[in-house]
Amino acid sequence: MSEDMKVFENLESEVRSYVRSFPTIFTKTKGSKMWDNKGNTYIDFFSGAGALNYGHNDEHMKQKLIDYILSDGITHSLDMASEAKAQFLTAFNTIILEPRNMDYKIMFPGPTGTNTVESALKLARKVTGRTEVISFTNGFHGMTLGALSVTGNSAKREGAGIPLQNVSTMPYDNYVDNQSSINFIERFLEDNGSGVAIPAAMILETVQGEGGINAASFEWMKEIEALCKRWGILLIVDEVQAGVGRTGSFFSFEPAGIKPDIICMSKSLSGYGLPFAATLIRPEIDQFAPGEHNGTFRGNNHAFITATAALDYWKDNKLGARVNHLATKTEDFLNDLVIRYPKLQGEVRGRGLMTGVACGVKDLANKITAKAFELGLIMETAGAKDEVFKLFPALTISDEELGTGLKIIEKSVELVLETETQLV
Amino acid sequence: MSEDMKVFENLESEVRSYVRSFPTIFTKTKGSKMWDNKGNTYIDFFSGAGALNYGHNDEHMKQKLIDYILSDGITHSLDMASEAKAQFLTAFNTIILEPRNMDYKIMFPGPTGTNTVESALKLARKVTGRTEVISFTNGFHGMTLGALSVTGNSAKREGAGIPLQNVSTMPYDNYVDNQSSINFIERFLEDNGSGVAIPAAMILETVQGEGGINAASFEWMKEIEALCKRWGILLIVDEVQAGVGRTGSFFSFEPAGIKPDIICMSKSLSGYGLPFAATLIRPEIDQFAPGEHNGTFRGNNHAFITATAALDYWKDNKLGARVNHLATKTEDFLNDLVIRYPKLQGEVRGRGLMTGVACGVKDLANKITAKAFELGLIMETAGAKDEVFKLFPALTISDEELGTGLKIIEKSVELVLETETQLV
Amino acid sequence: MSEDMKVFENLESEVRSYVRSFPTIFTKTKGSKMWDNKGNTYIDFFSGAGALNYGHNDEHMKQKLIDYILSDGITHSLDMASEAKAQFLTAFNTIILEPRNMDYKIMFPGPTGTNTVESALKLARKVTGRTEVISFTNGFHGMTLGALSVTGNSAKREGAGIPLQNVSTMPYDNYVDNQSSINFIERFLEDNGSGVAIPAAMILETVQGEGGINAASFEWMKEIEALCKRWGILLIVDEVQAGVGRTGSFFSFEPAGIKPDIICMSKSLSGYGLPFAATLIRPEIDQFAPGEHNGTFRGNNHAFITATAALDYWKDNKLGARVNHLATKTEDFLNDLVIRYPKLQGEVRGRGLMTGVACGVKDLANKITAKAFELGLIMETAGAKDEVFKLFPALTISDEELGTGLKIIEKSVELVLETETQLV
Amino acid sequence: MSEDMKVFENLESEVRSYVRSFPTIFTKTKGSKMWDNKGNTYIDFFSGAGALNYGHNDEHMKQKLIDYILSDGITHSLDMASEAKAQFLTAFNTIILEPRNMDYKIMFPGPTGTNTVESALKLARKVTGRTEVISFTNGFHGMTLGALSVTGNSAKREGAGIPLQNVSTMPYDNYVDNQSSINFIERFLEDNGSGVAIPAAMILETVQGEGGINAASFEWMKEIEALCKRWGILLIVDEVQAGVGRTGSFFSFEPAGIKPDIICMSKSLSGYGLPFAATLIRPEIDQFAPGEHNGTFRGNNHAFITATAALDYWKDNKLGARVNHLATKTEDFLNDLVIRYPKLQGEVRGRGLMTGVACGVKDLANKITAKAFELGLIMETAGAKDEVFKLFPALTISDEELGTGLKIIEKSVELVLETETQLV
Repeated sequence: MSEDMKVFENLESEVRSYVRSFPTIFTKTKGSKMWDNKGNTYIDFFSGAGALNYGHNDEHMKQKLIDYILSDGITHSLDMASEAKAQFLTAFNTIILEPRNMDYKIMFPGPTGTNTVESALKLARKVTGRTEVISFTNGFHGMTLGALSVTGNSAKREGAGIPLQNVSTMPYDNYVDNQSSINFIERFLEDNGSGVAIPAAMILETVQGEGGINAASFEWMKEIEALCKRWGILLIVDEVQAGVGRTGSFFSFEPAGIKPDIICMSKSLSGYGLPFAATLIRPEIDQFAPGEHNGTFRGNNHAFITATAALDYWKDNKLGARVNHLATKTEDFLNDLVIRYPKLQGEVRGRGLMTGVACGVKDLANKITAKAFELGLIMETAGAKDEVFKLFPALTISDEELGTGLKIIEKSVELVLETETQLV
Repeated sequence: MSEDMKVFENLESEVRSYVRSFPTIFTKTKGSKMWDNKGNTYIDFFSGAGALNYGHNDEHMKQKLIDYILSDGITHSLDMASEAKAQFLTAFNTIILEPRNMDYKIMFPGPTGTNTVESALKLARKVTGRTEVISFTNGFHGMTLGALSVTGNSAKREGAGIPLQNVSTMPYDNYVDNQSSINFIERFLEDNGSGVAIPAAMILETVQGEGGINAASFEWMKEIEALCKRWGILLIVDEVQAGVGRTGSFFSFEPAGIKPDIICMSKSLSGYGLPFAATLIRPEIDQFAPGEHNGTFRGNNHAFITATAALDYWKDNKLGARVNHLATKTEDFLNDLVIRYPKLQGEVRGRGLMTGVACGVKDLANKITAKAFELGLIMETAGAKDEVFKLFPALTISDEELGTGLKIIEKSVELVLETETQLV
Repeated sequence: MSEDMKVFENLESEVRSYVRSFPTIFTKTKGSKMWDNKGNTYIDFFSGAGALNYGHNDEHMKQKLIDYILSDGITHSLDMASEAKAQFLTAFNTIILEPRNMDYKIMFPGPTGTNTVESALKLARKVTGRTEVISFTNGFHGMTLGALSVTGNSAKREGAGIPLQNVSTMPYDNYVDNQSSINFIERFLEDNGSGVAIPAAMILETVQGEGGINAASFEWMKEIEALCKRWGILLIVDEVQAGVGRTGSFFSFEPAGIKPDIICMSKSLSGYGLPFAATLIRPEIDQFAPGEHNGTFRGNNHAFITATAALDYWKDNKLGARVNHLATKTEDFLNDLVIRYPKLQGEVRGRGLMTGVACGVKDLANKITAKAFELGLIMETAGAKDEVFKLFPALTISDEELGTGLKIIEKSVELVLETETQLV
Repeated sequence: MSEDMKVFENLESEVRSYVRSFPTIFTKTKGSKMWDNKGNTYIDFFSGAGALNYGHNDEHMKQKLIDYILSDGITHSLDMASEAKAQFLTAFNTIILEPRNMDYKIMFPGPTGTNTVESALKLARKVTGRTEVISFTNGFHGMTLGALSVTGNSAKREGAGIPLQNVSTMPYDNYVDNQSSINFIERFLEDNGSGVAIPAAMILETVQGEGGINAASFEWMKEIEALCKRWGILLIVDEVQAGVGRTGSFFSFEPAGIKPDIICMSKSLSGYGLPFAATLIRPEIDQFAPGEHNGTFRGNNHAFITATAALDYWKDNKLGARVNHLATKTEDFLNDLVIRYPKLQGEVRGRGLMTGVACGVKDLANKITAKAFELGLIMETAGAKDEVFKLFPALTISDEELGTGLKIIEKSVELVLETETQLV
């Protein structure tokens, strides 16, 4: 470890994590590039775990933010009314909701993904008067107690220190080979001897990020929505990681043609990487009492400013088309990669710019991401056993930067597999 | 309602709250002043519920923030190492911890008060292997499920939609007339037939903000610390609202001479009102595994920048002295007020610049804060029945602004009591 | 209602249940016959819900009980040592355990099925240090809170008035058409992102009585046992209803060749219908502290006396052979019945003398049992929707009595289907 | 250990408990005398932990039971109607309820104390729609999960292996020196920031048996009843140990003049030591659906027979008067004893024939009961630390037998204190 990193070892808690995978001190960033204090440059295929879909320090948002700060615009307002908030509400409604015929009320919980999930679970329980929630295998929804209870990862769950309650886990799409997840869930719901009560809600991600880049089919989502309707269950879609363009459309569930009752948004919603979250609620179930769920930073005006500016990207279809272009390129590369390197025992997963390769060999994905870092690429792993290396470039990445990143991946795979073979 | 406020009614969830108490659109703020889009000026005795102890848009912090943004410093870093974070860690250690002989590891959970509380509860349960936690009557710790379980307010608790578990509530200092809280707690702990298990932790605020501006005596805190030591219970102090100078010292528990095992910080820690939180942990119990508790916005570099700049206020004792000066002035005013207006049935509460008056007449506090708003003062209520009007000026407020605010309070009391009397 | 039944309506709680299905006052019983106070005779195909496998008032047991009472033998002894208990322990070991190479310690919990289940769950959690338990769809284990949490029926579960916790329900054998229960369970266990923790125990019935007379295959039981071994999970078999000869062997799981870690027994264990229960525990996990689970009536000496006498039935293989003979006769009858009465939409279920017919038409099973009662046969329904009429004759029933009962069933089916058809 | 006791060590679970305190094999009993297989005679001051208030093998009940068995009366009937049950219902109503102006519906849960408590808790939650229950320090209500959750003893609670939920423990009468339990509870109820929700019910014993022979004052019970009324909370009195004449009246709460909403009865209700329980329910809240709480042995006709015969004791006031006579004699003796043996550091506790002496010296009570056993007296300890030796003679004991027992106690105290002193 270099001398200047000792400050983290000495002063920061052992819980620190990414600093162990990327042991250097970052200073400056722009678009898809990051620089450290040694002058090294990195291509970013991590994008703040999905919080930087528009890349780092976007110039348009930056200018708006600087102007706002210089004008002494109100910074912190809880849920008082502010001009910045009014502008965001209006822009979000005009640019995002109305063109999609979506009629939702917008709630600002505390500015993180786990807070929006907590608000959604509370609301669903309040509205239905039921206590149970159905979550899905390998779902990831956050680290506070309510969100953690619907998260699948056992190491994370054990961190609670208490049994997690009021949740039944059901199989995600394609979870058990040759067995239909839908038939299974339906049987449990229709049989009142199943031991699983009709829940307040089901909560799901359309593509599971932390859980291993598992993409549910559109057909499965439609069937889940139908099940929810048939049994009076609220459907919560957690768009924290898969939303905001990551899979090609603003909401990841758009191509499936479903209409969730509650939508959880955070990460890239602020556009600039600032803490921000929103819970979208069908008007019929907008039934919280004033202040029934609150939070000090639910009015982060800097985020209102950058989030409003970010919505300019969605005034036309250019970004969506661009994502599809980049996604195809990435997918082609990965499909080719797993064929050319059979020792990977690789399985390509994902949708849009949310892809990854599940490696059949233990620890291989971690070795590949470590090697990639050495070669100048920031990329992380996913899955309950860290078995997937995960490609999360910014949606705004250039073809050239994407190409550089993909080449580093290939080189990393090659070098790691060489070493692996020598070890045997 | 004015036309321009309809955007909030039409688009924002019913859960919105402060906008109902302060029905105007804020645009610009500076220090202890706020302006709305009609050109009205307000004195701020609310301070973002404690998130703006240094006032709005502090010039020193603002300049540092602008410089950082302009330099394209990394904005979002999760828990990777960044220069901004290194500077904050170093400054916090040098300016705050070392001079107080405090040896703590610093954890960055998600950037809100409820997230630091959740991290503290999880850690305490993990370290002790116990499941139960002791909370206190009228404690307030947040809205996510774990933090909510240690929060006393029944309306907030019912919002969970499920029974809240693994917590026993014990009486705060002076909770039952003429009965010792300490004797009570000790009896429950020493009797293994009490039905209350030795808990993982006790969690408390030194002055309860939301709970009604109840200030525990230093003696009580010392006895609680002694109880915790005797029974091997971890002591968590939630400094989210009472910390960062609000009661005159950086940590509110300093004058009590206690050393908590875990300290929860947020609100004014970033200085500028940006979302930020930290959990301070005694090194011996810094036992989370890497990533065992995480969160996307645990590395908010804008907040690192402003928080570091804010620490400059603590390089000498001037701010503490200033708080004491302002606190005395406020306290004198309030003591005088309740004498001169006996119909208030007022009881002065609090410590430092965290004070309030509990009114014996139903709804009176709400009427007084509403009247104050009309007269140009932002002030909120606290307590389980909103029975307290709460004075939370910035620590940096001028004598003149403080005086103006206090005069508005007196005028509001006078006008409300007149109306009340006429009604009878 | 007859005048003499008003006492029940006036004085007994609304919770009373079977008295509504069989609205008469029973006075005398013998073997498979019951008489009411009007002088009517009934054939008993109910057998006290499995508590009277040897029929009513068996002469041999009766004589032993009378002798004991007349001798002023100790009646109530908690878990002090008594001669009657020593005799039972010895007989149970010699006649039941040793010949089957079963090495178990015997625990006497409170004298009911739900109490033995509670003791088993507590022990499994204590021994493994884990909190979760896997139960199965349509399992029934009792009405106290722990046993209820592993019971599937939603109406029973809702009776708790609180969410039932620390349990995951898995699919019983053949639960979802064409989907393997075993593959499903295994996938959840091996995937540490499944959201289902490795449990302390699995608890199951080999044939689900209340749940609808669902008989698991021996192959399934073996695979469950193998899963438990592989993952260090304790296997609890609840023999309360299926045990004590009901399916042809003393323990219902014997033909499957499995060795549970804990076995729950009650109902017919006392032989004479007296309250009694036992928990059999593998010696390695016999780890309760003295008195850690207790109960006032855990020493019911009258039951020790009759239970010891009942074991005489198991000194040779005659009863087992007799059950098989009767079971074949019953099965042949039912298979024939569903063919001859296709309007039943009947499906024959069960094993040994634990059989029933699931009717595809709503409410039909209830109508058939009601008609059978009119015609002199006591029989109940089972299943989450009462869709099964359930044949539970005594193992000691004569061929003639069995024949009479079966004829009444056929007549009842015929009459009910006639009426049904007329209604349409 | 004698040879003949090895059967228990070899075959019975380690959970066995009283057999360790009284290591001999009992054979015959009558009234207040017990005999073992060595021919030793013992005076019984234990009375089956309260299940044998009328002594062992009462001749009147015995004759009725023998007659019933010989007549082939129905033994096991679940909740079908039987003649024996009709007679019990009528007798209980005529002899017990009507003369006391008590209007209750009678429910027969499974035949043990813990089962009646479980039924009471479920009913209270169902009727009120609330989830929480208030229990009291050192309460003891049973070992199944629901009953255990309202039991105070930490060793018993830990046996659950999971956190016990939905219960708040409040201080019993005189729990904390010089602090009013009532003021404390009232403060928690009236303050909606207390963290303790208005519960479905409070559950209490009038004299805590297992908890250390703590007798609540009549005044306290009245105040608790008033609190319950004021807040719409159901009052459950657990009469399992203190009821059926133990303190001088049939119901222990009669002299306090209170009317519980639900009354839990078991132990001595059958009179003869047979498993039996009843839940008495105010008609207005008799709201279980048929079969919503059930149990195989809820119709124990042998117990109906003996319980009906036992009620003959209550046709006049003789037994009550006799209890008072014996109680006075016992109390005088104990008061005198603690004065004459100050080294006991003894505190006399209890009411009626439910008394004991709390010893200030660790382990002393256990030594005294062990010595008493050697000298021919069966007596147990109580309290969370086994600090109380507990006198529980039959209500039917003769003056001579009582005197013999008391003398053995004195002798035991004397001998133990001698040894203690020598040790020092």
